[in-house]
Amino acid sequence: MGPGQRDLITPRALASLHQAEVIIGYKTYIALIKDLISDKQVISSGMRKETERARLAVDMAKQGKLVAVVSSGDPGVYGMAGIILEVAGDSVPVEIIPGVTAGTAAAALLGAPIMHDFTVISLSDLLTPWEKIVNRLHAAGQGDFVVIIYNPRSQGRQQQIEAARQILIEYRSPHTPVGIVRNAGRVDCQVVITDLENLLKEEIDMVSTVIIGNSETRLENGCMVTPRGYAL
Amino acid sequence: MGPGQRDLITPRALASLHQAEVIIGYKTYIALIKDLISDKQVISSGMRKETERARLAVDMAKQGKLVAVVSSGDPGVYGMAGIILEVAGDSVPVEIIPGVTAGTAAAALLGAPIMHDFTVISLSDLLTPWEKIVNRLHAAGQGDFVVIIYNPRSQGRQQQIEAARQILIEYRSPHTPVGIVRNAGRVDCQVVITDLENLLKEEIDMVSTVIIGNSETRLENGCMVTPRGYAL
Repeated sequence: MGPGQRDLITPRALASLHQAEVIIGYKTYIALIKDLISDKQVISSGMRKETERARLAVDMAKQGKLVAVVSSGDPGVYGMAGIILEVAGDSVPVEIIPGVTAGTAAAALLGAPIMHDFTVISLSDLLTPWEKIVNRLHAAGQGDFVVIIYNPRSQGRQQQIEAARQILIEYRSPHTPVGIVRNAGRVDCQVVITDLENLLKEEIDMVSTVIIGNSETRLENGCMVTPRGYAL
Repeated sequence: MGPGQRDLITPRALASLHQAEVIIGYKTYIALIKDLISDKQVISSGMRKETERARLAVDMAKQGKLVAVVSSGDPGVYGMAGIILEVAGDSVPVEIIPGVTAGTAAAALLGAPIMHDFTVISLSDLLTPWEKIVNRLHAAGQGDFVVIIYNPRSQGRQQQIEAARQILIEYRSPHTPVGIVRNAGRVDCQVVITDLENLLKEEIDMVSTVIIGNSETRLENGCMVTPRGYAL
């Protein structure tokens, strides 16, 4: 369903909601589209219930229902696509509908920070060993990738984004531009542009996307721009 | 304008085409939306004319015209967003409209290959020194990132994808799943799933997106799935 604003939901996603008999999703995302699905059977549940939602969706599909599972952004980027395919196996057909992911929606609000090669890294260590995330941050630094950070802070844990900053500042200037977008694409979207040195002074939470420039990223009229290299 | 199919163009992008007085774009992309803009002033040009198109767009905007510059996929991912901001400076206001990028559209057709941290790397060395691309491929290997490759082959050059395969196979199994999507999201879309060992036997061209799994990516009922780590 894209990053949250109604006019960034693709017609294909919208059509799937209209066709579905049952809509299943995380309650925060279901709330955003409530008026679109008022005539449907809707099943919503809380965080960390992903496997449960996937099982329920597959079970209902096996019973012959046309089921839509809602994911924010693009369902294939830290969304529900993988777990659904794993649970479904060959029992029911599954269609994945791509969407505008939070990373590119955030980029559009900041200017053009990901015009060159980038990495997407989630700092959530609920499902991933922290050492693996640390290794990826070092690799991103070594490769001079622009870095898009999803889940910069988890509930109850604050130090991931501090550690990420500490690693990346080993590889690039403290003046490297950094953009922070809270709720990319939703109505209460907030945009901040700062730099690696001052990153931790800004408010960063679970719904923030953080984009850290590469060695060539600069500010252009207040926007973050990572030049692709066209001669001007 | 998304990866090419009409139902993956966001309502926001469509509204901008309707509002614009002038539409400027690469001729192949303009052709895909010709019927939507038949009543507009349309200026199309060929490859490698990006700077020229950006200058023209900014010049016409300075003259008071409402101009839409068309980019395929997401304009901020190897698209027109950066060059437009660079050329525009503070002379005219610019709005970037995010879209479904080829990488996530390709992923959706392959299953769920980018459910975990990934890198996006263009193999085009027209604007980027090849050594920098090589360094990024090594970093992607070291970090065990899923790798999305844009521009796997340029006109007149064939060896980039061979070199990329050679580098990544230093870090991961030859049996690592690889997906190839030609024209992600367009009507002639073709999908192939192979592995690192056999990658070069497949047809790969300028309009292909190649997704190379990480060490955990596997096939699930014929789909590429990179598990996020949910307990099943």
